[in-house]
Amino acid sequence: MRTGPTNFLADGHSTSPAGWSAGVAACGIKYPDRNDLALLVSEHQCVAAALFTKNRVKSAHILYDTSILARSPTAIRGVVINSGNANACTGEAGLTDARTMARAAEDTLHLPESSMLVMSTGVIGIRLPIEAILRGITAAASHLDPKGGRAAAQAIMTTDTRPKHAAITVSLSDGHTITIGGMSKGAGMIHPNMATMLGILTTDAAITHSALQTSLHYVADRSFHAISVDGDTSTNDTLLIMANGLAGNHPITSIQTPDGQEFLSSLLILCQYLAKEIVRDGEGATKLIEITVSGAQSREQAHQAAMTIARSPLVKTAFFGADPNWGRIICALGYSGVEFVPEQCDLSICGIPVFAQGVPLPFDEHTASTLLANASEVTVVANLHLGNGEATVWTCDFSYEYVRINAEYRT
Amino acid sequence: MRTGPTNFLADGHSTSPAGWSAGVAACGIKYPDRNDLALLVSEHQCVAAALFTKNRVKSAHILYDTSILARSPTAIRGVVINSGNANACTGEAGLTDARTMARAAEDTLHLPESSMLVMSTGVIGIRLPIEAILRGITAAASHLDPKGGRAAAQAIMTTDTRPKHAAITVSLSDGHTITIGGMSKGAGMIHPNMATMLGILTTDAAITHSALQTSLHYVADRSFHAISVDGDTSTNDTLLIMANGLAGNHPITSIQTPDGQEFLSSLLILCQYLAKEIVRDGEGATKLIEITVSGAQSREQAHQAAMTIARSPLVKTAFFGADPNWGRIICALGYSGVEFVPEQCDLSICGIPVFAQGVPLPFDEHTASTLLANASEVTVVANLHLGNGEATVWTCDFSYEYVRINAEYRT
Repeated sequence: MRTGPTNFLADGHSTSPAGWSAGVAACGIKYPDRNDLALLVSEHQCVAAALFTKNRVKSAHILYDTSILARSPTAIRGVVINSGNANACTGEAGLTDARTMARAAEDTLHLPESSMLVMSTGVIGIRLPIEAILRGITAAASHLDPKGGRAAAQAIMTTDTRPKHAAITVSLSDGHTITIGGMSKGAGMIHPNMATMLGILTTDAAITHSALQTSLHYVADRSFHAISVDGDTSTNDTLLIMANGLAGNHPITSIQTPDGQEFLSSLLILCQYLAKEIVRDGEGATKLIEITVSGAQSREQAHQAAMTIARSPLVKTAFFGADPNWGRIICALGYSGVEFVPEQCDLSICGIPVFAQGVPLPFDEHTASTLLANASEVTVVANLHLGNGEATVWTCDFSYEYVRINAEYRT
Repeated sequence: MRTGPTNFLADGHSTSPAGWSAGVAACGIKYPDRNDLALLVSEHQCVAAALFTKNRVKSAHILYDTSILARSPTAIRGVVINSGNANACTGEAGLTDARTMARAAEDTLHLPESSMLVMSTGVIGIRLPIEAILRGITAAASHLDPKGGRAAAQAIMTTDTRPKHAAITVSLSDGHTITIGGMSKGAGMIHPNMATMLGILTTDAAITHSALQTSLHYVADRSFHAISVDGDTSTNDTLLIMANGLAGNHPITSIQTPDGQEFLSSLLILCQYLAKEIVRDGEGATKLIEITVSGAQSREQAHQAAMTIARSPLVKTAFFGADPNWGRIICALGYSGVEFVPEQCDLSICGIPVFAQGVPLPFDEHTASTLLANASEVTVVANLHLGNGEATVWTCDFSYEYVRINAEYRT
């Protein structure tokens, strides 16, 4: 894949692409006077694709959206999102609530049935306060704004400390410029919140449904699926992309074409940014840790090895303590389940070679520790020397603050 | 399996069974003036069986012991164990050191070649101080003591805060009483220590090698393999059992016989005690958490589901915070990879039903939280209602202290 000429917009967001607008409202779902509902709408119908959590416990919004996307994947007009309540473990009633939310948005905006998707994030096991949400939908619809993407990114936050949004422009071969925007929210979990990874991507590109779906899978594996805050997979995780075609470009029909490659590489850069923002804002995080495993027997093995390192509490606490602890990383590789021969493995931390061919290398521990103590980003690079598989994942360190946030009884 | 008439001895340990003695020495491997070497010896040769870490990075002692047990599994006389240095990631030289340790013990005690096993636990990536260890072996051999089991349990400690040992007696059908003793050490990991789970079991039972091996596998799955402190699997984990036959019982030839069942049930009780002692003494642990999953499609699925709950940092921090957080447990079941239908699942915490058939049950949260805050042992029971598979595992909570211990730079 080429890295095409991509450009981040200053303060870009999900309504940066042409034809998109957003409105927000405060429904008092969990906190008073805080925007907790976002309505994101396209003035033209979209092709849409989504990926949902693999957790067997699925939020009602996932069941609802799955059925809508199966029915009308090329006639989507937007999404209505609430924070503060996950609408998970709510049974049949929860599914009815999800449908009611979507219908209310469609009715208020005079859109056809099955054109609006829904998302929820927050407390699980409690019914949505549906009346308050319906009032919120009316309020949000009354002030849809083409600059509303930033407020929308704020409204979908739960335990996030800051909104996460960006947009990127891409020049295509026919002279048209397309824009891709997006927002994400965090993967930390606080009871009674079971917060969720949400990623919502918008674009004005003209693209076929199959090219869009293929793109989403490809970039998700290298961005949102390549991050770990605490290793738990929520009931609500959702990644959605909607493309309204208003840029007027010659439609992208395949990711194999030059324009398809441009789209794909820009979408990947955007999604990696939005995914890393989630990790940087992980509960109690003080450092972003980038872990690359190369020389694995396959990309899947490299990914599994890197994620095993990323999930190790021992590795994560070591980085919190500015400890260049190669032993814990080698140990995690050893139990990752991937093909791995210690005697062939090389490892470096922040560019310092620490382990080669089965034995530790001498290095100045004081220098390494000082480097780690001052770094907000840490790199771990392991080469297994067994093949061509390579993958990069991102995680954060494990701090006192993580324990405090997650141990505190519901307040 | 029957639960036979088993009896714990007061202050029992690995030299409680007939014919066993132990000696210790301070070699200064990591700390001065601390016993860090234990010699455990039987006056008669033993049948022996062992289970080793599945980590692909294996301590030299594991490679050495594997070869000895393949060669002379019925002519073992004991084991020499050092703490403070794991002899892992030490290459060919490490393997030579392991062999040198074993030979020194055999020579000093005038035992045949290939009769002594070795174990190491502690720092990885550093050569053993072999001269100091050889002096320690001589010193330990000079004061072998039939009451030495307690001192041995102390000498093998690394990050453990207390020694872990016990012994149990079993009456057999022929009127003989056999004794099974043992010691264990902790599974927490502190850099530069990569501490290890070690379990060493001794008995005076007469038992065939195949019955001993079968017993060890059975009980390990339900004890040492059913605990998790932080989910990391070390390079050195080892479980060893040695049986010298000096009780004079009619040899146990199968675990299917009544005497085999008595032996098996007592060994299981002993091993569960020693394994739970590791969890209770887990780094920063304030609570022992017992998780039982029943109604799974198989025992393996039940075990996998229970271990997924046990490894979740979110579940572990919730219990530290005295939070009866059923949502995190249901969520962990959902991503455990086992067959699981939320609408059929029941869940209780400390005997309080909190979730049934897909929806949360009303319960008094204040009462539940107060109960959890005051409990040193917590139970989680989930019934998946899908089959007859059942398994119990043990873990501990996740505290500030865990982060402190594991983040502190090497001191």
